[in-house]
Amino acid sequence: MRFAKGHGTGNDFLILPDPDDAVALPAGLAARLCDRRFGLGADGILRVVRTGAAGPGGWFMDYRNADGSLAEMCGNGIRVFARYLLAHGLAEGPALVVQTRAGARQVWVDADGAITVDMGAAEVLGSSAAVLGGVQCRGLEVSVGNPHLACLVDQPVAGFGLSAPPAIDHARFPDGVNVEIMRVIGARHLEMRVYERGSGATLSCGTGAVAAAAAAGATAGAAAGTWVVDVPGGRLSVTLTGTTSLLTGPAVIVAEGELSEAWLADQAAAAPSGAS
Amino acid sequence: MRFAKGHGTGNDFLILPDPDDAVALPAGLAARLCDRRFGLGADGILRVVRTGAAGPGGWFMDYRNADGSLAEMCGNGIRVFARYLLAHGLAEGPALVVQTRAGARQVWVDADGAITVDMGAAEVLGSSAAVLGGVQCRGLEVSVGNPHLACLVDQPVAGFGLSAPPAIDHARFPDGVNVEIMRVIGARHLEMRVYERGSGATLSCGTGAVAAAAAAGATAGAAAGTWVVDVPGGRLSVTLTGTTSLLTGPAVIVAEGELSEAWLADQAAAAPSGAS
Repeated sequence: MRFAKGHGTGNDFLILPDPDDAVALPAGLAARLCDRRFGLGADGILRVVRTGAAGPGGWFMDYRNADGSLAEMCGNGIRVFARYLLAHGLAEGPALVVQTRAGARQVWVDADGAITVDMGAAEVLGSSAAVLGGVQCRGLEVSVGNPHLACLVDQPVAGFGLSAPPAIDHARFPDGVNVEIMRVIGARHLEMRVYERGSGATLSCGTGAVAAAAAAGATAGAAAGTWVVDVPGGRLSVTLTGTTSLLTGPAVIVAEGELSEAWLADQAAAAPSGAS
Repeated sequence: MRFAKGHGTGNDFLILPDPDDAVALPAGLAARLCDRRFGLGADGILRVVRTGAAGPGGWFMDYRNADGSLAEMCGNGIRVFARYLLAHGLAEGPALVVQTRAGARQVWVDADGAITVDMGAAEVLGSSAAVLGGVQCRGLEVSVGNPHLACLVDQPVAGFGLSAPPAIDHARFPDGVNVEIMRVIGARHLEMRVYERGSGATLSCGTGAVAAAAAAGATAGAAAGTWVVDVPGGRLSVTLTGTTSLLTGPAVIVAEGELSEAWLADQAAAAPSGAS
């Protein structure tokens, strides 16, 4: 089984090319591949499957979380996925379409090599608050397909405690919420950190950057415009059009190779029967 | 640049074959390779360099820590290094010699595939104490080339606090010390956890397992014998002969491949001039 490893602003992925949809990827194997010491290590897996359609939109991104569970979409992941397709001549740039469980997504590669994805509309739904490291922060609830609470603060975001889950309003967010803290550090320029539900503090979060820009735009009374969002893993930018949001940033392939047959056989032997 | 990734009881390594000693590996590049999100990720790097000598002892293990600094030896690393040599026909088993900065080391592959390395003598030097999560533990100071404090306890080792550095006697250990907590769970059978100076709590530590066995042997009045040592990442065994110590355990290659030329060029461009 071949693989590539890549990242977008420090959010890292294993890419498994499987054009003919021939590779069974039970949750246990996916989790073991993402294990950073016993496997190759990553935040998630992008299996590359041909849809049957020729031309743009001919590829499906089968996204898996690091625990092996399915997910619908991943803003940094789809940008790395597109980089892989382009690098291998599996799609033609500069514009392409990638199929996901959340539907078809338009992707572009820019002249400088950055990759942009249309993330759909970000909806600002109201206000709430979270407590981070003992400090209460008010924020705006934003839906980017998944739920966010984007808190605008006046202090440098590095000073906020994200080692433990923020305390949130569980009546409002019964399934949890991703919490962003962000500060305006220039004209339409944010610094942001994020606590992802289920993952903790991460180096980057694509939907989180979109939520932060949407909340900052709503606060500034500017529903449209481009925001630069500095995250711990690098720099993203988000363009709000009023009807959709575009996420732009680097997408890097680090290495490619082949999994050891012996290692794969050991994982199959170790899996409980009936694991899926 | 080709690479392999492997591990021994969850202590993981990047293997960089460089028979002709042609690859410059500045500390910055080594650290970036070991970065788990922006690179491939590992606890350390094993560069595979031919010594010029034919036959056994023809290979040098250039070991680097995850921060890019040089290290002399690594008990789990040399076992993974030997696995790589054998898998690629670069050495013949079952016995081989690997050159390290700490000198030549004898290695064997067992009939069941486990790999054993002669770690040299473990010297029990006296007693001291450490405080782990508020609990004082007495232990024996053991030198395995590097310093250890191996603390025999009566409670399950899972219950001890290793999230913060243990408090140690700094007058006795001015350069710090690796701290093991271990419990006898059967006949010559230990469970052990380790806090490595500079790295924190790890899944496994080869010299730590040897130190634990030596301390347990000294406590039991048995300088020779074989101890099974269960670490969080798996199972090792240590044979004390009275004059040396042999470390045995699994060594696994997970995958092999090639680093992206574009990624390597970016690392070179990002390195400050004069970095080494």
